[in-house]
Amino acid sequence: MILMRQFQRPITDTNMQKESEFSDKAFAPASGDMSAADFRRVGHQIIDWIADYSENVENLPVLSQVEPNWLKNNLPKHAPENGEDFAEILKDVDKLILPAITNWNHPNFHGLFSTSTSAAGIFGELLAAAFDQKAMLWRTSPASTELEEVVTDWLRQMMNLDAGYTGIIYDTASVSTLHALAAAREGLDLKIRETGMSGRSELPLLRVYTSEQSHSSVEKAVLLLGLGQKSLVKIAVNERFEMDANKLREAIETDKAAGFVPFCVVATVGTTSTASIDPISEIVPICEENALWLHVDAAYAGSAAIVPEFQKFFAGCERADSVVTNPHKWLFTPFDLSILYCRHTDLLKRAFALVPEYLKTNETVTNQMDYGIQLGRRFRSLKLWFVIRYFGQNGLIERIREHCRLAKLLADWIEADENWELAAPLNFALVCFRACPKNVENLDAFNENLMNEINASGEAYLSHTKLDGKFAIRLSVGSIRVEERHIEKVWGLLNAKV
Amino acid sequence: MILMRQFQRPITDTNMQKESEFSDKAFAPASGDMSAADFRRVGHQIIDWIADYSENVENLPVLSQVEPNWLKNNLPKHAPENGEDFAEILKDVDKLILPAITNWNHPNFHGLFSTSTSAAGIFGELLAAAFDQKAMLWRTSPASTELEEVVTDWLRQMMNLDAGYTGIIYDTASVSTLHALAAAREGLDLKIRETGMSGRSELPLLRVYTSEQSHSSVEKAVLLLGLGQKSLVKIAVNERFEMDANKLREAIETDKAAGFVPFCVVATVGTTSTASIDPISEIVPICEENALWLHVDAAYAGSAAIVPEFQKFFAGCERADSVVTNPHKWLFTPFDLSILYCRHTDLLKRAFALVPEYLKTNETVTNQMDYGIQLGRRFRSLKLWFVIRYFGQNGLIERIREHCRLAKLLADWIEADENWELAAPLNFALVCFRACPKNVENLDAFNENLMNEINASGEAYLSHTKLDGKFAIRLSVGSIRVEERHIEKVWGLLNAKV
Repeated sequence: MILMRQFQRPITDTNMQKESEFSDKAFAPASGDMSAADFRRVGHQIIDWIADYSENVENLPVLSQVEPNWLKNNLPKHAPENGEDFAEILKDVDKLILPAITNWNHPNFHGLFSTSTSAAGIFGELLAAAFDQKAMLWRTSPASTELEEVVTDWLRQMMNLDAGYTGIIYDTASVSTLHALAAAREGLDLKIRETGMSGRSELPLLRVYTSEQSHSSVEKAVLLLGLGQKSLVKIAVNERFEMDANKLREAIETDKAAGFVPFCVVATVGTTSTASIDPISEIVPICEENALWLHVDAAYAGSAAIVPEFQKFFAGCERADSVVTNPHKWLFTPFDLSILYCRHTDLLKRAFALVPEYLKTNETVTNQMDYGIQLGRRFRSLKLWFVIRYFGQNGLIERIREHCRLAKLLADWIEADENWELAAPLNFALVCFRACPKNVENLDAFNENLMNEINASGEAYLSHTKLDGKFAIRLSVGSIRVEERHIEKVWGLLNAKV
Repeated sequence: MILMRQFQRPITDTNMQKESEFSDKAFAPASGDMSAADFRRVGHQIIDWIADYSENVENLPVLSQVEPNWLKNNLPKHAPENGEDFAEILKDVDKLILPAITNWNHPNFHGLFSTSTSAAGIFGELLAAAFDQKAMLWRTSPASTELEEVVTDWLRQMMNLDAGYTGIIYDTASVSTLHALAAAREGLDLKIRETGMSGRSELPLLRVYTSEQSHSSVEKAVLLLGLGQKSLVKIAVNERFEMDANKLREAIETDKAAGFVPFCVVATVGTTSTASIDPISEIVPICEENALWLHVDAAYAGSAAIVPEFQKFFAGCERADSVVTNPHKWLFTPFDLSILYCRHTDLLKRAFALVPEYLKTNETVTNQMDYGIQLGRRFRSLKLWFVIRYFGQNGLIERIREHCRLAKLLADWIEADENWELAAPLNFALVCFRACPKNVENLDAFNENLMNEINASGEAYLSHTKLDGKFAIRLSVGSIRVEERHIEKVWGLLNAKV
C-alpha cells in the first residue's frame, strides 16, 4: 500500500509489538455486554493506540493516500454471522481504517479550516459515549441540560458577549444558522408555523441578505426553509472581501420598494475564503432601522473573541440577534459542537416546540428539545467543559494567539519575497496567497498544480479559493500541535517548487 | 445529597480507593496538547471508571435524583483563568456529573424507548473522537465516507431491505425524516429550491399525511420546511393504533378535489406510544396510484427487522421510497446514529448540493456533504461497524429476540392478573398497560401516581402515554443489560402498590 511505502511509520512498529496483547481473545458473551475485565483490557489498548497515534501523527501523510474504493474493496460485502474477537477488529483499524484516514490532527493540516481535537476533548467524548444521554427533557439528563447552560455561559463571558445571549448547542454551524433563520422567519408573525408558505397568495416574497463571501450553509438553510435561492440576496464585498454596508442598505431599499419583505441579514466575522470581517457595526443600524434579524456567522473566528486584543473584530455583536461559534473548529474540541448564542430563545421555542403526550412532564424546567429540530441531544457540553477547565482561559488564549502569530509570520515571509504575494489581507490565522514568479504565464494553473503536488505528497494539506477570479492558496493555522517549524516546513515545500 | 443517602454505591467506594491515582497531577503544558504519558495514565483511569460505572449502574438510581438547578448551583459561574489538574476534573465527574445523570444504561430504564450503548460502541466513539474526521468531501475522510457505505449496506441486508436502498447516516431520526421530506418536496418539480414557496400565488397547498400516532418529528419537519401545520393531515387509527388506510385514501381524494397537492405519506413501523405498525402493504398502492413519496419511520423498530421472524412486520417496505432506522435506539450503538435508507439520493442531492469554490475538487467520488444540511459529518459508521462485528448478526438477533420475549412475558403476567390490563396490543418489546383494581375510581390518577412513585424511587423508570383518552403506562425493554430478573423486579414494584 502506498502509505506503507512512503512512510516508515513508527506507529506500525509500535502496534506490531503489541500483537501479543491484541491476541488475547475478546469475544462477545452469549448475552449482555462485554465483561468488565475485557472492557478494561481492550480499553487500555485503545487508549495506548491513540497515544501512539497522537505521538506519531506527524509521520503519517496528511491527506489519506488511498485511492477511491480502496477501503470499500477491502471490506467484506456482508456482515459477519457470528461475533468476532475484538482484537481482530482493532487490527483492522490499524490495517484498513488508518490508511484511509485524512489526518486532521496532523500539524500540517492547513486546508479548509485547520481544526483539532485535544486529549481533554477526546476524554469528554469517551465519557459522553459511556453515559449515552439523550437530553430531550431535563429529567432525561439534568447533567447535560444544566452543564450546557453553564459552559455556554462561561464561553459567552470569555467571548465578551453580553448576558442577553443564551447559548444553545447544536451539532454544526449549518444547523445553528438554520435555527437562527427559522427563528427569524417565525418572528415575522406571518403564521408560517400554522399555515406554511405554499399556496398563500397574500404572502410577500421574503428576503435574506448575506455577502458574496458568506458560507454555503446560509444558502443551504434558505433552501431547506423553503425560501428559495431567489430570496437570498448576495451583497457585493469591498477589496478586503468585506460586505459593503452601503450596498446592503441599497438592496434592502430596492427590495422594499418592490414589495418584498426583508427579514434577516447574515454577516460573517471570519469568512471561509479569507477570514474577512463584515463591518458589523455598520450593518447593525441598517438592521435596526429595518427591523431585520442580524445573525453573525463566527463559526470559525468566534474562538478568537476570547483573546482580548481580537475582541475589537467582534464590535457590533452586542447589537446582533444571534451569533454562531464552533468550538469544534478552533477551540480544541472534537467535532461536533456548535453554539448558537441567541437573544430570542422564545422565538426558537415558538418555531420548534411541540410536546406529544409521551413527553409531557409536570416539571417547570428547560427541556432542550423545545429549541430545535432534534429531539434527542448528545451530552456535548461535557467535552467543552473538560477543554476549558484543562487549558483554562489563559491556556486557550495563548494557543489562539500563537496561531495568529504563526500566520502573521508566514504572511511576512510572503510579503518579503518577490516570488509570492498575499491574495487577501491577513485575518486571524488564515493566510491567502499565491506564487507569482515572473517567468510563469498561467499563474492560476501554476498555483493549482503546486498545491495539488504538495497535497498529493502527504507532507501538508492546503486548500484553495478564488479571489477576484484568481486562484489563491489558503493556509489555515489551527492545530493544537502546530509549531513554528511546521510553518517553516510548508514554506520550504512551497519554495522548493517555485 | 439525595443520591448518596439512598444508594450505597459501590462505585463511590471504588473511586475513593483510586484517590491516590487521581492525585497524580495532570496539568496542561504551556503549549501543545497533553503529553502521551499523561494521556495514557488519565485514559486508563477513565476506562477503569467506566468499567466500574458499567458494573455498578444497576445500583444507581435510574432517573437522576437531583433537584432542578442542583448542578448549576454547584458549578462556578465563570471559567477558570488557568488550567486545572485533570485529576480534579475527574473528581468532579464523580461528585457533580454522575448524580445528575439519568442512567439510560440502567437495565430498569424502561421509559420512552429503552436504548443502550455497548462497550464496542463506546470504543467506536472513542476512536472517532481521536480521528476527529469531518467527512464533508471524500478526500477529507475516505475512511468515513466508504465505511459508511459498507456498513449501512451490511445493515440493509440484515434488515432484508432490497438493494435499491442507499443508506445515509444522519444524527437523529428527526433529521433523517426532515431530509426525506425535503427530497420529496424537491421531487414535486415546483422549483421550490430556486424560487421558494412564499409569494408565489401559482403554488398549490401541499399536503403530507401521517397517522395520529406518528412521531412529533414528522410535524417538526413539516414546520421547518415551511409547509405549515395545516399541511400535515393526521389520519385516524384503528383500535390497534394503526393508520386506517381507507381513511388515508379518502383524505387524499378529498384534498385533491379541493385543489390541494398531496406529495408524501409518512407511515410508521413501531410508533412511539404503542409500537403499533401501520399497514404498509395497504398504504403502498395508495402512494403509487397518487405518485406520493412513502417514507417509513422505523426509527425504533427497524432494528427488529434483522430478526427473521419479525421481517413480516416490514412487508411493503420494498415499495417505499425511504425508511429511517436508528441503530442508537435498539442496536447497542451510542447516540447519535440514524440511517435514512433512500431510493432517490439524486433528489436529496438536488435538494441540498451546493459546492462553493473552496470545496471544489477534481475527484469523481461521493462527497457526502452533497446529501444533507450538515457540511461536516462525524465518523459515525465506525461505532456501528464495531457493534456489528463484535456481536455478529446472530448476537444482535438473539438480543433483540430476548427483549421481545421479556416483553411478552410481562404482557402474559398482565393478562393473567385481574388487577392489570394491557392498554394496547403488544408489539416488539414495548408493553402498554394499566392497573385496574376494582376498588379504585379514578384509574387515570391512580396509574399516574403509581408511575410517578416508582420513577421517583430511582428503582425503575417508566413513561406514559394516553390511549383512547386513558392514561397508560409504557414499559420498553431494550437495554443490553436487561434480564428476566429486571422485569420481575418491575412487576414486583408495580404490584407492591396495587
